[in-house]
Amino acid sequence: MDEIFKSAKCLFCEICLIHFQKRTGILASARKMSTQQHNLVLGNMNPCIKKMEYAVRGPLVIRATQIEKEIAAGVKKPFPNVIKANIGDAHAMGNKPITFIRQVLALITHPPLLESKDFPEDVKQRARDILHGCKGSSVGSYSDSAGIEIIRRHVADYISERDGFPASWENIMLCAGASEGIRACLKLMTSPGEGRRPGVMIPIPQYPLYSASLAEYNMEQVGYYLDEERGWALDPAELERSIKEARAHCDVRAIVIINPGNPTGQVLTKQNIIDIVKFAHKEKLFLFADEVYQHNVYVFFHNSAKVTNEMGAPFNEIEMASFMTCSKGYMGECGIRGGYAEVLNLDAGVMAMYQKSISAKLCPTVIGQACMDAVVNPPKPDEPSYESWNCEVQGTLASLKRRAELVANTLNSIDGIQCNTVQGAMYAFPQVTLPPAAIAAAAEAGQAPDVFYAFNLLESTGICVVPGSGFGQRPGTFHFRTTILPQEEMTKDMLGRLKEFHINFIKQYS
Amino acid sequence: MDEIFKSAKCLFCEICLIHFQKRTGILASARKMSTQQHNLVLGNMNPCIKKMEYAVRGPLVIRATQIEKEIAAGVKKPFPNVIKANIGDAHAMGNKPITFIRQVLALITHPPLLESKDFPEDVKQRARDILHGCKGSSVGSYSDSAGIEIIRRHVADYISERDGFPASWENIMLCAGASEGIRACLKLMTSPGEGRRPGVMIPIPQYPLYSASLAEYNMEQVGYYLDEERGWALDPAELERSIKEARAHCDVRAIVIINPGNPTGQVLTKQNIIDIVKFAHKEKLFLFADEVYQHNVYVFFHNSAKVTNEMGAPFNEIEMASFMTCSKGYMGECGIRGGYAEVLNLDAGVMAMYQKSISAKLCPTVIGQACMDAVVNPPKPDEPSYESWNCEVQGTLASLKRRAELVANTLNSIDGIQCNTVQGAMYAFPQVTLPPAAIAAAAEAGQAPDVFYAFNLLESTGICVVPGSGFGQRPGTFHFRTTILPQEEMTKDMLGRLKEFHINFIKQYS
Repeated sequence: MDEIFKSAKCLFCEICLIHFQKRTGILASARKMSTQQHNLVLGNMNPCIKKMEYAVRGPLVIRATQIEKEIAAGVKKPFPNVIKANIGDAHAMGNKPITFIRQVLALITHPPLLESKDFPEDVKQRARDILHGCKGSSVGSYSDSAGIEIIRRHVADYISERDGFPASWENIMLCAGASEGIRACLKLMTSPGEGRRPGVMIPIPQYPLYSASLAEYNMEQVGYYLDEERGWALDPAELERSIKEARAHCDVRAIVIINPGNPTGQVLTKQNIIDIVKFAHKEKLFLFADEVYQHNVYVFFHNSAKVTNEMGAPFNEIEMASFMTCSKGYMGECGIRGGYAEVLNLDAGVMAMYQKSISAKLCPTVIGQACMDAVVNPPKPDEPSYESWNCEVQGTLASLKRRAELVANTLNSIDGIQCNTVQGAMYAFPQVTLPPAAIAAAAEAGQAPDVFYAFNLLESTGICVVPGSGFGQRPGTFHFRTTILPQEEMTKDMLGRLKEFHINFIKQYS
Repeated sequence: MDEIFKSAKCLFCEICLIHFQKRTGILASARKMSTQQHNLVLGNMNPCIKKMEYAVRGPLVIRATQIEKEIAAGVKKPFPNVIKANIGDAHAMGNKPITFIRQVLALITHPPLLESKDFPEDVKQRARDILHGCKGSSVGSYSDSAGIEIIRRHVADYISERDGFPASWENIMLCAGASEGIRACLKLMTSPGEGRRPGVMIPIPQYPLYSASLAEYNMEQVGYYLDEERGWALDPAELERSIKEARAHCDVRAIVIINPGNPTGQVLTKQNIIDIVKFAHKEKLFLFADEVYQHNVYVFFHNSAKVTNEMGAPFNEIEMASFMTCSKGYMGECGIRGGYAEVLNLDAGVMAMYQKSISAKLCPTVIGQACMDAVVNPPKPDEPSYESWNCEVQGTLASLKRRAELVANTLNSIDGIQCNTVQGAMYAFPQVTLPPAAIAAAAEAGQAPDVFYAFNLLESTGICVVPGSGFGQRPGTFHFRTTILPQEEMTKDMLGRLKEFHINFIKQYS
C-alpha cells in the first residue's frame, strides 16, 4: 500500500485525496503547470471544505475506476471485472428504468411526441398536466423555487393517501434530490461564527451527506449510536447520553433519523419513532426524517409524519421535515435529481425565510420535478399503463428483497462476519472481526483497519465497498457497507468472491 | 400602498416579505395553525439567510402572480394581462425550444425512441454518445460529480474552437445551471468566522445571485460602480477606489465581471477585460467571469479566457473561472438546469478540495448535462439537423436583436427615461428621472422611490419589472430592469403601456 494512505483517521481527507490523485495522475491539471504562485491555497481556503469527507465517493472508488480502465487496457487481474457496490446507484448496476416514468419524461421534453400513437393515454395525460403547470407550457421555463404547484399538490395527495391524514401542498418543497432539501433545512440553523456552534444529532453509523454537510456548514456533529446487537435499534437512553454530553459544548438544534437506515438497513419500529418524537419535543429539536428509502422496505414501515399525527398534540406540532427522492425506491432515478421535503409546523417567518433562501438557486430541475410527479402519481388500476407499471415495480422490489436476504444470509455464513437483517434500504453493513495481526498490518500500512480490509478486498476481488469508518462505527469495531444492487447473478458472484477473499485474509493474518 | 412596504431599504427583506405574504394570504401555512411555541424562530435562525435578498423573485413578482389569478377569476383591471418582464425566462415568454436539443433529450430519456424513424441520425448519434457515457447506459445513474467525461470533453472542444487556444476537459466542471458553479467557487473562499471577513468585488449594478450568495456565505460585498454615462463601461480608477476602501475592513479575495452585463446589457470591450485581468493579477484576486450571455451578443464579444491567453504570462496564469449555462443564449432552457464552469490555474490542492466539495451533492442533473452537450456540440453543416437547427437559432437571435433595439429606442423616446444601448444579454436597465413629489410620495408610502414606481407600474399596466435597488445603483439614481423577452408584438404592447403610464405618473407628481 502506498504511503499516501497513511492517514489512519479518515479515508477522504485533504492529504490522502490530493496525494492519491497526484499518484494516480488523475488530479485535474491546471491549464498551465507553470511555477506560478497561487493566491488561493490550502492554507487560506475555506477550512470547512477541507474538513468535509464523503466516503461514498472517496479514494477506494477512484481506485476502482482505475482498475476498470486497467482491465479494459488488457492488464491481467485475478478477477474478470470490478463490482461497484459502493453507491446506491441502481441503474449503474443494471436495474432498469420504469417505462411509465421515462415515457412521461420523454413527452414533456419533446411535446410533439404527444401526437405519437406509441404512448398510452395515461402517460399523455400526465405529461399534459405537467406541461400545463409549466410557464409557457415548456419544461425549459423556470418553475417557482419550491416547485410546480400541480406537482406539489400531487405529492400532498400521495402523502394524504399514504397516511390517512391530510397533507398541505404549501408544505411540499420540491428539490433536486433529497440532499438539496436536507441541506436547505440544515442551513436555516447554521450560525456565522458568533456564540456557541449549532449542533445536530445524527445516528452513528450515518450517511456521510450529514457529516459532510455539517462540516461544510461549520456545525457540530452530535452522534448517537444505534444498537447493532439489537438490529441497529434506537435506544432512548443513548439519545439522552448523547445530548447531555453535547450540550456541554454546543447548541443542539436538531436530530436526524434515517429510516430505513443507511448504511445500516434497519427499519425503525413504531415505538422507536414515538421515542424520537417525544425526545425531539422534550428537547426542543427540529426533526429531520430522512425517509428516502420508504419504498425499499422488506418488512414494515412507519413514516414519521403519520406517527406524529397519530400521537396527536403536542407531538404533531413539532418542527420537522421529511425527505423523499426519485433516486431510490423501485425507480432508482439518481441522475434525474428529483425529490421533495415535506416541511411541517415551521414558524411562519422561518418558512418565509426558507422560501427566500431557495429562490437564489432559482428552481430545482423541472424534469426532476416531473419524475417525482410520476412517482407520486403512478398509473391507477383502471389506466392503460397500470399492468406493465405494476409488473415492473413489483418485479424490481421482489428482486431487491431476494437480494437483501441473499446478501445478509451469505455474509452471516462467513466466519468472522456478522450482518443484521436487511429490513429496508439498499445496503448491508456487516461487522468484520479482524485478527490482531491484520490490525497491526493496517497500522503498518498507515491505514485504519477497515480501510486496509476494503482496499485488500478491492485489489484481490474487484469488489468496491465503503469502509465503516466513512459512516462512523463504535471504536474497535470494523464494518463495511455494500449495496444489494448488483443483479442477482452478479450478487452471487460478488458474495462468492468476498467469501473466498475473507477466508484467505483471515488465514493470512492468523 | 400597504404599510407593509414601509421598508425603504429593501424590497425583499425579512419584514416586508413576511408581512406581504401574510397580507396576500399566500404565506405557506403550517399544517396546524396552532398556538405552539416554535423552537426555530427568526430570532435564533441563521442570520445570513435573513440578510439575503433576491429581488428577481421578490414581492413584485408575488403580486404580479396574484394579479394574474385575479384576472383569471374575472376581476376587472385596466389592462388585459400581466407581462412578466422581471426574469430572464425565455420559454415562459413564448420563446420556442430548439428542436435539436429537445430531440436529443427525448432520446436519452426514453432510449426505445432510438428505433423511431422520426428522429434524424445526428440526433441519434448524440444520444448514443451521451448514453454511452452514462453508467449502465442510463441517465438515471449518477454521473461523476464534475459531470460525464464525454460531455466535459465536448465543452473543452467547444472552448478550444471558440478561442483558438486548447482547453482541457479536466478543468470543465458541469453544474446544474451556472449559479451552482458560481456558488461552489465562492464557497472555496468563505471563512467560518475567524479573522477578517473575505470580500468579493462585484459590479454595481449586479445580478442579485451575487449579493444573495455573499450574504448567505457571510462574505463582504465590495461593489465597484459601472459608468452609466459611458454605456456601463468599466473604469480602472473605480476598481482602485473600491479595493482600497474595502481593504480597510475586509480581505478582498475575488472580483466578478458579468459580461455581457446583467442587468446592464453592456458588453465589455477587450480593453476593459485586459484592465480587469491586470487588476486581478496585481491585486492577487480570483476572477469570476460570468459569461452566461455569451450567445446573446448584438455587437461584439471577447471572452475572458481568450483574452488572458492572448495576453500571455503572467496574465494567463491568474486563477479564474468562466461560467456558462443552458438557460440563456438562443436556447433559454432555464428549467433544465445545465451549465458549466471552466476553472483555470487553480492550485492542485484547492482543485482537489473543489472536487471533493461537490461530491457530497452527488452530481448535477444528467439531463441538464446532456442539454449542455447539445449546446456545445450542435449539428455540423453536413449533418441532417443542421438546416432546421440553424434556422431556429438564427431566427431566435435575430428576433432578440430586434427586440433589444426596439426596447432601448422606445425607452429613450420617453421623456425622463434614459437607456443605454442593449449590446448583449436579455435586459434593459434604464434610468428613470423621478420628480421630487414622486420621491416624497414614495417616502410617504414607506418605499424606495424605484420600488414605488415599479409597484405603480404593475398595478396600472400589469407590467412586472424589477426595481434598480434590487441590483444596486448609484445613490440618488433610480432604475428598473426589464427583459427583452416578450414576443415582438407583446414587446410593442408592453412599451406602449409603459410609455402611457410614465407620462401619467410624471404628470401626477409634477
